Amino acid sequence: MSVQSNPYGPNPSDFLSNVNKFEVIESTLREGEQFANAFFTTEKKIEIAKALDDFGVDYIELTSPVASEQSRKDCEAICKLGLKAKILTHIRCHMDDARVAVETGVDGVDVVIGTSQFLRKYSHGKDMNYIAQSAIEVIEFVKSKGIEIRFSSEDSFRSDIVDLLNIYRTVDKIGVNRVGIADTVGCANPRQVYELVKTLKSVVSCDIECHFHNDTGCAIANAYTALEAGAKLIDVSVLGIGERNGITPLGALMARMITADRDYVLSKYKLHKLRDLENLVADAVQVNVPFNNPITGFCAFTHKAGIHAKAILANPSTYEILNPSDFGLTRYIHFANRLTGWNAIKSRVDQLNLHLTDSQVKEVTEKIKKMGDIRQLSIDDVDSIIKEFHSDLTTPSIRPQTNGGQEADVKVIADEELEAKRRKVE
Amino acid sequence: MSVQSNPYGPNPSDFLSNVNKFEVIESTLREGEQFANAFFTTEKKIEIAKALDDFGVDYIELTSPVASEQSRKDCEAICKLGLKAKILTHIRCHMDDARVAVETGVDGVDVVIGTSQFLRKYSHGKDMNYIAQSAIEVIEFVKSKGIEIRFSSEDSFRSDIVDLLNIYRTVDKIGVNRVGIADTVGCANPRQVYELVKTLKSVVSCDIECHFHNDTGCAIANAYTALEAGAKLIDVSVLGIGERNGITPLGALMARMITADRDYVLSKYKLHKLRDLENLVADAVQVNVPFNNPITGFCAFTHKAGIHAKAILANPSTYEILNPSDFGLTRYIHFANRLTGWNAIKSRVDQLNLHLTDSQVKEVTEKIKKMGDIRQLSIDDVDSIIKEFHSDLTTPSIRPQTNGGQEADVKVIADEELEAKRRKVE
Repeated sequence: MSVQSNPYGPNPSDFLSNVNKFEVIESTLREGEQFANAFFTTEKKIEIAKALDDFGVDYIELTSPVASEQSRKDCEAICKLGLKAKILTHIRCHMDDARVAVETGVDGVDVVIGTSQFLRKYSHGKDMNYIAQSAIEVIEFVKSKGIEIRFSSEDSFRSDIVDLLNIYRTVDKIGVNRVGIADTVGCANPRQVYELVKTLKSVVSCDIECHFHNDTGCAIANAYTALEAGAKLIDVSVLGIGERNGITPLGALMARMITADRDYVLSKYKLHKLRDLENLVADAVQVNVPFNNPITGFCAFTHKAGIHAKAILANPSTYEILNPSDFGLTRYIHFANRLTGWNAIKSRVDQLNLHLTDSQVKEVTEKIKKMGDIRQLSIDDVDSIIKEFHSDLTTPSIRPQTNGGQEADVKVIADEELEAKRRKVE
Repeated sequence: MSVQSNPYGPNPSDFLSNVNKFEVIESTLREGEQFANAFFTTEKKIEIAKALDDFGVDYIELTSPVASEQSRKDCEAICKLGLKAKILTHIRCHMDDARVAVETGVDGVDVVIGTSQFLRKYSHGKDMNYIAQSAIEVIEFVKSKGIEIRFSSEDSFRSDIVDLLNIYRTVDKIGVNRVGIADTVGCANPRQVYELVKTLKSVVSCDIECHFHNDTGCAIANAYTALEAGAKLIDVSVLGIGERNGITPLGALMARMITADRDYVLSKYKLHKLRDLENLVADAVQVNVPFNNPITGFCAFTHKAGIHAKAILANPSTYEILNPSDFGLTRYIHFANRLTGWNAIKSRVDQLNLHLTDSQVKEVTEKIKKMGDIRQLSIDDVDSIIKEFHSDLTTPSIRPQTNGGQEADVKVIADEELEAKRRKVE
């Protein structure tokens, strides 16, 4: 059996799976604008739209042009940029909004209406017949303008399944381009998602788009499971920014998808630009990239425990499903601590161009662990212990040290460097 | 149909589900110590252990006593605290480690060994027969001391399924208390987890514990799906700290589980202490609570878009699956921005104890949106616009303002307050 086999690709028994042909609807400039801290100037919106386009997103979704006068002007400005990505705007299912939207120059309109009991009671107060009538009117109007149209329910997972399937079949029959499922409150779990998408797939012939909020931490897994069940498009935003704690993050979805189909993801998206894109948006909305962010969190490729470090030095895939170089990043072995092992220390000894036998390395490792029990160690502390140990063995003939000449693919660092790195990203 | 029905509970067709009787193995002091920034003094370990115990975790897992001399002493010290939670330590599947572990006073020992092709080749280099022999020896030894024993494979999702089931059946037969599945590299997705746990459940009679890394963002969803398939115990750490970007976070798991079974979660865990617990650990390892953290992220209960605010004011459940008061927290309506709606502004007008008709509120809302197009608004900006508008209507007889007397369950705030809140949590 090959150790290179990848069981994380599409399941061969999933005939409906779109895991290896998914598309991304990037909503930093719509859902993301609903994030508490977000205020995007026109210039910032254009900068973000260009960066998203360069990254390779399939669609860019913008705030409704009826939200405010400037929102409309910004929408028009972004449509005129001539980006490769298709430009969408997101409106209520209402002719007043649709008439404004189709004049902005967008490639498509995303229409949404609340179908849950909650929304029908506390938001718009309409029944399913009214919803269907509005949907048909808006869809036919937008189609008449030669523009893509998506119809989505809101809070789909708390809507009546019969109501949902009825309305989706209705809009599918009149030729909507996509139907959308939205977990507006972030309550859905993966198996519910799988069931709903699979059922919907049997009812409509158009593409299925999914939108997952992250209140209960399942937005990435739900997106993946939706693709397995036959959804084609996933709504994302940079760092997941949106209402409350947001939606499926673009970067985390890339981590999930590259694990399933590396070639497809690398062929479509410029992953090495992810970090800059996240920093751009993080700065714009004045947040720090979370320390535990997939891929770009400061410790995402840092290995610490002795047994982990040993195997990583032998073959990084032992403890990594992602390859940091795919994202223009580097892995780190954290050796200056009490959990360190002799393999990590041996690697540092080599970097220092010193020569110790394995048993000598084990001996100096014990000294380092003892010091690590007392306080946090810096790389200088560890180097001093190693050098002193080496010096005691070889005095008076110490080899000259070289700097950095041995730095290999695997970089071994200590607390102070990590600290500097942490400060930089936060 | 009642709008209160909860379809997010255990699926009635899941006879094996433990969603409504799960337990937590809290590993901040083991997995969390493998986090890049972690250095816990004895005092800090004791403080964290007591806080975890007070929160209500079922087990507390500690670093191996053979990791270092101080690790062993700390383990002994925590065992002597007399906590309600059972104390575990986590060791390699080796008699050298087991002999030390059973002398520390722990209630149980968690044994782990790598079973993937990667780990067998690049870490310990042993075959499955050797692994089985070691496991039997260690398990029988630990059992002979009257101590709980768990046997876990490492990197289970990249291990041969036949090898895995063989070893699990072997250790189950000799009376292990739990078997563990570990997604050591964070590659698993929910449907794989469901299949593996369900299969394992048909092979062993003991409890199943699961450990999920978060490299591809699925650690929370995988934990939930494992419980659905019959796993009983989930490994967590505070904020998910651990190797690389960590494991299933305690807080996010609580968000997921309370959505499924609120009564069970509230009966076992002191959720209102979650925020202090997270702050304690975040301070100890010098990180910020991520802005988008479920529950405690600064914006987790902040609503912004006009249509969201309207419905939240009528019934918070419309856009919330979690109730912030369950966690000792409050929700916020963010109204000082261009996406605001007249319902949010009406609420603010009421708070200011001013009296405007609906059409007057709509008029002043348009003024506020126009200003919000130009720049970020503060609460003072909005209040000034409202007061000026009101004054123009009523001059010369302005009602006296009251301060805060109208603050209700739903608090309406603006950028500057959010900013202060953000600074505090970060």
